Amino acid sequence: MSDAKPVLIDGEWRAADGEGTFEPRNPTAQSPTGELYPVSSLNDVEAAVRAGAAAAEEMAGLAPTVIASFLERFAERIEARADELVAMAHAESGLPASPRLQDIELPRTADQLRQAAAAARAGSWALPTIDSQSGIRSMYAALGGPVVVFGPNNFPFAFNSLAGGDFASAIAAGNPVIGKANSSHPGTTRLLGEEAFAASQDVGLPTAAVQLIYRTDHQVGEQLVSHPLVAATGYTGSRSAGLALKAAADQAGKPIYLELSSINPVVVLPGAIAERGGDELMDEFVTSCLMGTGQFCTNPGIVLLLKGEGAEQFIAAAREKFGEAPVGTMLTEGVQKNMERSVSHLREAGAELLVGGATGGGAGYSFQNTLLRVSGTQFIKEPEKLQEEAFGNESLFVVADDMDQALEVSRRFEGNLTGCIYSHSGGDDDALYNRIAPILRRKVGRLLNDKMPTGVAVSSAMNHGGPYPATGHPGFTAVGLPASLLRFGMLQCFDNVRPHRLPPALRDQNPTGQMWRLVDKEWTQADAAAG
Amino acid sequence: MSDAKPVLIDGEWRAADGEGTFEPRNPTAQSPTGELYPVSSLNDVEAAVRAGAAAAEEMAGLAPTVIASFLERFAERIEARADELVAMAHAESGLPASPRLQDIELPRTADQLRQAAAAARAGSWALPTIDSQSGIRSMYAALGGPVVVFGPNNFPFAFNSLAGGDFASAIAAGNPVIGKANSSHPGTTRLLGEEAFAASQDVGLPTAAVQLIYRTDHQVGEQLVSHPLVAATGYTGSRSAGLALKAAADQAGKPIYLELSSINPVVVLPGAIAERGGDELMDEFVTSCLMGTGQFCTNPGIVLLLKGEGAEQFIAAAREKFGEAPVGTMLTEGVQKNMERSVSHLREAGAELLVGGATGGGAGYSFQNTLLRVSGTQFIKEPEKLQEEAFGNESLFVVADDMDQALEVSRRFEGNLTGCIYSHSGGDDDALYNRIAPILRRKVGRLLNDKMPTGVAVSSAMNHGGPYPATGHPGFTAVGLPASLLRFGMLQCFDNVRPHRLPPALRDQNPTGQMWRLVDKEWTQADAAAG
Repeated sequence: MSDAKPVLIDGEWRAADGEGTFEPRNPTAQSPTGELYPVSSLNDVEAAVRAGAAAAEEMAGLAPTVIASFLERFAERIEARADELVAMAHAESGLPASPRLQDIELPRTADQLRQAAAAARAGSWALPTIDSQSGIRSMYAALGGPVVVFGPNNFPFAFNSLAGGDFASAIAAGNPVIGKANSSHPGTTRLLGEEAFAASQDVGLPTAAVQLIYRTDHQVGEQLVSHPLVAATGYTGSRSAGLALKAAADQAGKPIYLELSSINPVVVLPGAIAERGGDELMDEFVTSCLMGTGQFCTNPGIVLLLKGEGAEQFIAAAREKFGEAPVGTMLTEGVQKNMERSVSHLREAGAELLVGGATGGGAGYSFQNTLLRVSGTQFIKEPEKLQEEAFGNESLFVVADDMDQALEVSRRFEGNLTGCIYSHSGGDDDALYNRIAPILRRKVGRLLNDKMPTGVAVSSAMNHGGPYPATGHPGFTAVGLPASLLRFGMLQCFDNVRPHRLPPALRDQNPTGQMWRLVDKEWTQADAAAG
Repeated sequence: MSDAKPVLIDGEWRAADGEGTFEPRNPTAQSPTGELYPVSSLNDVEAAVRAGAAAAEEMAGLAPTVIASFLERFAERIEARADELVAMAHAESGLPASPRLQDIELPRTADQLRQAAAAARAGSWALPTIDSQSGIRSMYAALGGPVVVFGPNNFPFAFNSLAGGDFASAIAAGNPVIGKANSSHPGTTRLLGEEAFAASQDVGLPTAAVQLIYRTDHQVGEQLVSHPLVAATGYTGSRSAGLALKAAADQAGKPIYLELSSINPVVVLPGAIAERGGDELMDEFVTSCLMGTGQFCTNPGIVLLLKGEGAEQFIAAAREKFGEAPVGTMLTEGVQKNMERSVSHLREAGAELLVGGATGGGAGYSFQNTLLRVSGTQFIKEPEKLQEEAFGNESLFVVADDMDQALEVSRRFEGNLTGCIYSHSGGDDDALYNRIAPILRRKVGRLLNDKMPTGVAVSSAMNHGGPYPATGHPGFTAVGLPASLLRFGMLQCFDNVRPHRLPPALRDQNPTGQMWRLVDKEWTQADAAAG
């Protein structure tokens, strides 16, 4: 493996211990990028985990301001190296350099890191709670071991193992991170790793606060997430790989936060179609569904309509727009092949092809913009098969005979990240809304009105999460600070602990004067009364 | 099964569908209580789950004040039937009627229900979050299906499947509950179930808001916690049964909150022994360890000491006190047999018996008050075997050669609910404290100073939880309101949802004027500015 790029373990960029290498491919050119990356063995994993465990012990004693400085320094370094990062990510992902990577995703990534820094500095994420009468105090704190992050293929910056939301949250909560690069963009991850590591040394974090490996075989991956010294895992990716990791982590009693798959049902009620189905709503749907060649976790994969002329017009117009719209490049050959397979499965399950349905049509790996349709009756017969995620520029219209059938369809929806309902602005659809919304509500993490789901704002109130199988737990969000930090914290209670031994966040005096704390059941930024 | 007591399914006390019955035993008399209880089949489970799912749908639309009224009404009904409940619980558990059951546990149980009612009424537990600029709002809300609660044997009221902490939390968060009675006190659970159901009808909850079965075989239990319509499970009990349920729930992607086992290490530093080891500290230890015949989840099962004369005197005094103290009755024959087995395993792993060690010595099922001792060296050799929980009136002294070895011992502690450190009041032990506290801190949910762990106050800052295998997730507490409700909530985000369609907690106007909400990153009880 002398030609393969080095892994980063305990502060050293060194040759991987392992067998085999892999070559990432440029999906537009459909050819290798020219770099070679190593597959790590259990020895690499063991070394990274041990170093990470030592780093966790060291980081437990650090002031949150050091962590915050790291995140800010890292954001600056990413911005300083933006051109090279964008070129690499474009080569590896086929995503447009501009505006997508350079003007949207990279700034968003730097902004997330800065928001995470602000969250670490403020400390309010930890929900510090003081019961002054009983002498009992508690807060969330770092887990005490390294967090493993598996990033997905579709956001080479914003969800990157070493720069994205899981990374930022895990670090901001005080944990070291072992990044497992997504195999589709190891070069981007390596460059980000270089900047992350340099930033960590700029501010004096332990050498193993940030570590990087590129790939392991399945068994070693399972050993990683279930390692006794690993604290938790964040995973975004395919359902099958995620569930194998989940089984290993669950068996070992290790928390694992998964973002697996989501088809994001959109319900369009008749009044909304009548009012604005022809242009406004149609444009929103087409833009949302084809954005990033449909390779978004929140891509609208099912559109539920009520039978009628309006629905037929809407479907016909969508079919036309999909046929005319340019076809984007897919992230990898695997994504293209999965599209072929999923669309074929959906057709086997009874869906009718309206447009598209075949490989090609765009530069490099690509698949035609595709629409399918199925009746509500058939959906109710084959709900599982008709909810197979086709990750890409595809959507399935489900046309229900009437509202009762639409409710039955909704009851069969799996857990999803999002669910949308479009309704008449004047209230014509309100009776229907009131029947379907409660059913959809408990199936999804985020319920939208009159808005497509693909924008995921980094808001304090965002939930990028949802019931299984969208994620592994319905109580956590992967986007939205500071709430996303809670995934990587343990609840630490201090009972009768002497005042000078308490962490600063739990002492009578508010350590910053700004931290929000729940003192005797009231949220306040004031000091607690002396105990 | 004509003589067996009825189960409660969908508002009907009816004969169980199933095969077989069981007879609870009076552990003091070592004889049957005279009642017969049914083992439920999958048909009962299926009926309860379906009814519970319908109830969940209904409860989603209820005002939190209705839930709160139910919990308060139930507390009143428990108090009104206190004599009968205490008599039944005493007969089934052998726990002293007074003060334990009548004067401590029953009032605590009613108080917990009232605190849960207050939490439901206030609504602040749901962490309502408003981002007024983006139009995104979120909060925790009921899970959308029934919660299954398996209560433990050791608190027939306070952790009862149909009246304890998990029940109160799950209901207060808006979920229906299916209680699986602990087989050691089905009669107590039945009486509580009668009052819970009556209270639920007093306030107009759905008929399946509270349901009760007594026992299933293992396979049916696993089908219950992994049922597609079940939302989550709360389990407190033995590690082996809990892990089997966890595997089934994990596989189905269903949250399960487990409280499995804990040996609650207590570190006594030399200065503390010198200062107050002879009387004050010794009394605290003996009282804590023998309280409830040691059958507490927070019972101090390991005492870590540094070699020296002080340690020897402490051990000798404890041995004497244990030998003299009256021996209590154990909850069941199974608990007694487990003590025999665990003490024998600890001895096989190298622990030396100091006192006790044999069955008997008290009324009914009992086991002598037991102390064991082992060297730090041996503990480091057999950390797993020497951490087998002996659930009862037993503790193991671990005597380390020096502080370095004590740290090595601590590093091998499994996850626990609690960890205590006793140190010199004047600071003589502070250097040692500073070395061992960070290690213990991340192994335990609650760290105590100079205080035994057996009191678990129902405080807003309490954490009755801890890293695996003490529980299944280090971020949640089973005791302490309102935080314990979060286990039974899903995060629901509303994006661009029209104002009149938002739940009251997320509208601009604060629904009670008292609810704490995170509005634009500030905690406040004020209204949000109109969007």
